[in-house]
Amino acid sequence: MARYEVFVTYKRGIFDPPGATAERALRNLGYDGVESVKIGKFIQIDATGGIETVREMCEKLLANPVIEDYRIEEVGDE
Amino acid sequence: MARYEVFVTYKRGIFDPPGATAERALRNLGYDGVESVKIGKFIQIDATGGIETVREMCEKLLANPVIEDYRIEEVGDE
Amino acid sequence: MARYEVFVTYKRGIFDPPGATAERALRNLGYDGVESVKIGKFIQIDATGGIETVREMCEKLLANPVIEDYRIEEVGDE
Amino acid sequence: MARYEVFVTYKRGIFDPPGATAERALRNLGYDGVESVKIGKFIQIDATGGIETVREMCEKLLANPVIEDYRIEEVGDE
Repeated sequence: MARYEVFVTYKRGIFDPPGATAERALRNLGYDGVESVKIGKFIQIDATGGIETVREMCEKLLANPVIEDYRIEEVGDE
Repeated sequence: MARYEVFVTYKRGIFDPPGATAERALRNLGYDGVESVKIGKFIQIDATGGIETVREMCEKLLANPVIEDYRIEEVGDE
Repeated sequence: MARYEVFVTYKRGIFDPPGATAERALRNLGYDGVESVKIGKFIQIDATGGIETVREMCEKLLANPVIEDYRIEEVGDE
Repeated sequence: MARYEVFVTYKRGIFDPPGATAERALRNLGYDGVESVKIGKFIQIDATGGIETVREMCEKLLANPVIEDYRIEEVGDE
């Protein structure tokens, strides 16, 4: 069993609706120094099968490679 | 105290990343008859202050009027 | 091809983190009349295969029947 | 202007509905080696005002300190 961390972000140029909504809400709260907010996913997976299996899970379900980039890090054995 | 239901959807033409990801995942599960999946928010609010206050909450925080449409329904007093 | 609307909500008693976060943020914006906010999903699906196929998609991917309730409505043929 | 990365995760013991849904969906896709999936947020913020201002944004809007932990890293000046 190993632990993996996956960082999923929108590709450059892809519109990020949750980020845009948070950006507006922060300005409504008075934070005028906010230039940009992007919101992606931070996924922690405990699994057997190795990093290649985690890559497959990202391609099939956890990310959408057409619009998202993802980075996988193995952070330790459990 | 009244209960409101709010339906938040992306405006026509705005790209919907969670919907696009679900669409791909469903096809990966073998559902070839899926033409389109759009994912919005379904919000239930119990609050005093009337529907105009709920509209304000949508404009400021719950939706992003630049990219999202929302519809509010009052569904009953509590 | 038919269009379906799916409403996904947490079962009674299941903690709803996005709702709890929105509730806090609304109070931080000064909306003291907010008693409760629950956030679920509002999904629009265009697909062939009938409502039973949509129910299967919910069971397998779109909802988690252990913690979420869902309701499907057929809203028209395309 | 500086860039910050914020990692938001549920506190230990808090139920994570999106993670539980992804876990089930991965098993439905045949990934039996999946032991646990947790889904948090990965937020990138470009802003002036320093890391203390970002901490405030987390406390007020981006995270819910009652149920979520967050970690902020300054990753560079723009």
